[in-house]
Amino acid sequence: MSLFEAQLKDIYWAEKALTKALPKMIKNATSEKLVQALTSHTEETKEQVNRLVEVFESYNKKASAVKCEAMAGLIEEAEEIMSSCEKGPMRDAGIIAAAQKIEHYEIASYGTLSQFASTLGLKVAVKLLDQTLNEEKAADQKLTQVATSAINLRAANEKSA
Amino acid sequence: MSLFEAQLKDIYWAEKALTKALPKMIKNATSEKLVQALTSHTEETKEQVNRLVEVFESYNKKASAVKCEAMAGLIEEAEEIMSSCEKGPMRDAGIIAAAQKIEHYEIASYGTLSQFASTLGLKVAVKLLDQTLNEEKAADQKLTQVATSAINLRAANEKSA
Repeated sequence: MSLFEAQLKDIYWAEKALTKALPKMIKNATSEKLVQALTSHTEETKEQVNRLVEVFESYNKKASAVKCEAMAGLIEEAEEIMSSCEKGPMRDAGIIAAAQKIEHYEIASYGTLSQFASTLGLKVAVKLLDQTLNEEKAADQKLTQVATSAINLRAANEKSA
Repeated sequence: MSLFEAQLKDIYWAEKALTKALPKMIKNATSEKLVQALTSHTEETKEQVNRLVEVFESYNKKASAVKCEAMAGLIEEAEEIMSSCEKGPMRDAGIIAAAQKIEHYEIASYGTLSQFASTLGLKVAVKLLDQTLNEEKAADQKLTQVATSAINLRAANEKSA
């Protein structure tokens, strides 16, 4: 298996895991803006999973997943934050922090994958991967906006439960 | 414990773990440029650990660490890549991919911490955290340069061992 394919299987597992983790984060969020941002990113993530299937197909491979230990750890961290922070501004801020770490994992992954695909001359794959890369960057920026709008101001100094 | 403090303890654990993981990555690397980049980042990471102690002290807390599941997963992923790729360009490319995911975890962490510190009016902490944030961004860019220089070209299509 090439390194490109190994990394593709890793992010495919990670994105599918995220489609299950995001609804839990939405249930735990209280800020309307945060709920909106996470809900729209859940739909986007489902599309990104489909797009990864297209990437596999674009070079005649069947989509398959290999457990991504890093994403498993990131999701575990999100769950820890949600259970240790009281529901409200503080848990919202914790969810944003966890979600931004997840976005950055994906930004790094898609950046590497796009570089590999480009090196391999896989033009269709590059286009698909770059589309997702841009969506992940936008999602990260959106979360920064939500964080700086009001949540952090109330949350940063609150005590955990 | 405030969310700021919880996140600080998390990154303190993560940075200390990284000072132990980076030397293993250096031992596994073959590209001279990559060895240089990782060696210089190891020294930088040790300084970042000291800087975190200063952040704790700047608001009268003693530095303490709490296990960061995400960084544990990221380091595990790096080890998996190193053991599954034959030593040479492919393992080098895998090390870069893993290291960039680690850098992005840190970029997200320090970004959040700096925002929290700013909200709390902790000016000294903001300055220290931003210094590290900029170093992490530079380390990520340096790795992209190393990757695009030559390694990926040879590595992307090689088969794993």
